[in-house]
Amino acid sequence: MFMKDHVTKQARRAKEASRLLACIPVDVRNNALLAMADALEARQDEILEVNAKEVAAAREKATRLNMIDRLILSPKRIADMAEGIRQVVKLPDPIGTTDFEVVRPNGLKIRRVRVPFGVVGIVYESRPNVTADAIALCLKSGNSCLLRGGSEAIRTNKKISEILKEAAIANGIPAATIEFIGIIDRDAVVVMCRLRKLVDVIIPRGGAGLIARIVEHSTVPVIETGTGVCHTYVDKAADLDMAVKICFNAKTSRPSVCNAMESLLIHKDIAAEFLPKVAKVLTDANVELRGDDACREILPDMNEATDDDWATEYNDLILSVKIVDDVDAAIEHINRYSSQHSDAIITEDTDAATRFEQLVDSAAVYVNTSTRFTDGFEFGFGAEIGISTQKLHARGPMGLEALTTMKYLVDGDGKVR
Amino acid sequence: MFMKDHVTKQARRAKEASRLLACIPVDVRNNALLAMADALEARQDEILEVNAKEVAAAREKATRLNMIDRLILSPKRIADMAEGIRQVVKLPDPIGTTDFEVVRPNGLKIRRVRVPFGVVGIVYESRPNVTADAIALCLKSGNSCLLRGGSEAIRTNKKISEILKEAAIANGIPAATIEFIGIIDRDAVVVMCRLRKLVDVIIPRGGAGLIARIVEHSTVPVIETGTGVCHTYVDKAADLDMAVKICFNAKTSRPSVCNAMESLLIHKDIAAEFLPKVAKVLTDANVELRGDDACREILPDMNEATDDDWATEYNDLILSVKIVDDVDAAIEHINRYSSQHSDAIITEDTDAATRFEQLVDSAAVYVNTSTRFTDGFEFGFGAEIGISTQKLHARGPMGLEALTTMKYLVDGDGKVR
Repeated sequence: MFMKDHVTKQARRAKEASRLLACIPVDVRNNALLAMADALEARQDEILEVNAKEVAAAREKATRLNMIDRLILSPKRIADMAEGIRQVVKLPDPIGTTDFEVVRPNGLKIRRVRVPFGVVGIVYESRPNVTADAIALCLKSGNSCLLRGGSEAIRTNKKISEILKEAAIANGIPAATIEFIGIIDRDAVVVMCRLRKLVDVIIPRGGAGLIARIVEHSTVPVIETGTGVCHTYVDKAADLDMAVKICFNAKTSRPSVCNAMESLLIHKDIAAEFLPKVAKVLTDANVELRGDDACREILPDMNEATDDDWATEYNDLILSVKIVDDVDAAIEHINRYSSQHSDAIITEDTDAATRFEQLVDSAAVYVNTSTRFTDGFEFGFGAEIGISTQKLHARGPMGLEALTTMKYLVDGDGKVR
Repeated sequence: MFMKDHVTKQARRAKEASRLLACIPVDVRNNALLAMADALEARQDEILEVNAKEVAAAREKATRLNMIDRLILSPKRIADMAEGIRQVVKLPDPIGTTDFEVVRPNGLKIRRVRVPFGVVGIVYESRPNVTADAIALCLKSGNSCLLRGGSEAIRTNKKISEILKEAAIANGIPAATIEFIGIIDRDAVVVMCRLRKLVDVIIPRGGAGLIARIVEHSTVPVIETGTGVCHTYVDKAADLDMAVKICFNAKTSRPSVCNAMESLLIHKDIAAEFLPKVAKVLTDANVELRGDDACREILPDMNEATDDDWATEYNDLILSVKIVDDVDAAIEHINRYSSQHSDAIITEDTDAATRFEQLVDSAAVYVNTSTRFTDGFEFGFGAEIGISTQKLHARGPMGLEALTTMKYLVDGDGKVR
């Protein structure tokens, strides 16, 4: 009960503060953000000290190496966080604009204005930079944030949020617009995502397990982000050299991120020629290939893909490979197993490309391009709070506008209906 | 298990059909809708026969009178449904438009296009006209619909959906784009709202109980609609004659709908003058008033409001009344008890009006206007699938565009990152 009360109180404070924040001009928000970026750099030693202890504890617990890599901070990584905040300052103010206006024939004046959500709940895993990103994007968009980071980095995240909060308060931002939940109990997440009317939206940033748990329990609306089971389909009409280059980039340039390719589909007519080519460059780069029976007829040494592989986001140098009959079979496979994040076709046949674009039901559908481009900066939107893989409200890279809603303001001068 | 399998199969069929429907040109969709409207009128005797039996059964069960009123169909009501479908034909096609387009400095071509959701699940209560409205709006927006109507009208709804489906199929629409769940078991709703990846969005249309049940169980994203605990706040700077006129309209013009006023807040400085005036016209119109202690000091005969009253949507000739200290107290009360649908201030003081507009966290915020205007037609959007009371995706009257999402189409001509 203590935990539940505590989280509820934090959310209530954040809600009350959000009403004040919504009225604070953009200059004040921007100045506070600049001061927050400076504070992060000025006080980096405090952060690094706390972080070093958490990294040591993680090593003792023999945590997986890539988890430790995500946990570790350095002066460079702190400078990147500060730079990220300064970038957010440069983005246009997403709130207060009127995006629709009409005077109805009866004289009713209707305006629709962009307003903040209120309280944005963000649940994330071990990367401490998310703390700074989330606080900056929420403050810029006029939202309070209620943050819950992973337990491995909880002290580092708490320290970062304290430093940012102190600088925000000193610059005219209401204190409770930044609330960090420091309780390690996992059920704090469940409590948080059931606080309807106090929390306006929950954005999970993390793996499929975290997202599934939140979707199961949440009564607050959720925006799902970041699960990436991304496909590349190499059509019979593909330029095979281009296809090799794109597959290599999509799989190996940064395998731990959500827009990396996890599954390769190959048209049966070109498989005998293409599969050995692409397999060579990928295995040279230490990628493990897991194929279906048809692949293993061409390359008998390839590991076998099980049914689970088709739906798995490896986040690692592993790739599932399947040979398909035609573009329709590729589309069907993708619509069944994709996380609806980013999927690509490689083809010189415009009919096949159009059919793929039309029928693949994903946030970003690519023609002759690496899936690695699904990213706020690459799309020209700037910093993002996540890549939405759902269809409601936001889809694909979510910039500041995705953190706003709208309301109708109606002036009727005594009108009745 | 039979029930679960049955509902799942319907949803899967609807999903498969939705991919075909998304490619069908607007002319075909419009022609089908016109044929469907005609079929409804041509076959009205079949509908009226089934409906008469259900109405008789409801009367035997001594169902509440206003429920029976909502259930009854007549040639006029069927003609209205057909007319509603014809209106939807006239609306612009919401899908296929490109709403964002850019060529990035590296040559990447990015387009964002409006696309249907896929499968829209609609759960509603006893009004059979919702069946026709929902089918028409979903078909126009390229979505399959999975419908689940209330058990009292289940045969009427089934008949309407069969007639519409037959006319749709005869005009080139894939059969499974219209799926009506004819199972009476209430758990069918729970099954339906947990079919992630098959159902893309659930829109409940009904009372607070139905909505709460769906929000509790759903793992499919939900758009909440139609709960209306709407307030009117009469400020000390109000034109009191205008205030009386607006309150009378907001409460009595159609008390059963969601945009009717349910709660009246009065500034303490004008309460002694205003309350007796407004009470007179309302009680003359058979409105029952339930007041707080301060109200009952002015009008001792008034019934007492309990805590439950403040959050209650009566949908009836009942009004809760409270005296507040100032505009801030009114805003605080509204943000606590409002369903965030529609709330109004009556004032000649522009500062108070602006503060109210800024701080009241509702879909539609009115100045000197009856809340009864929150409606797709009144706003100029045409037929609506509901009034959203949530902040994600759609807020306020939801037209056709609210039934669409978007996707990014990216052409990179071999680009890698």
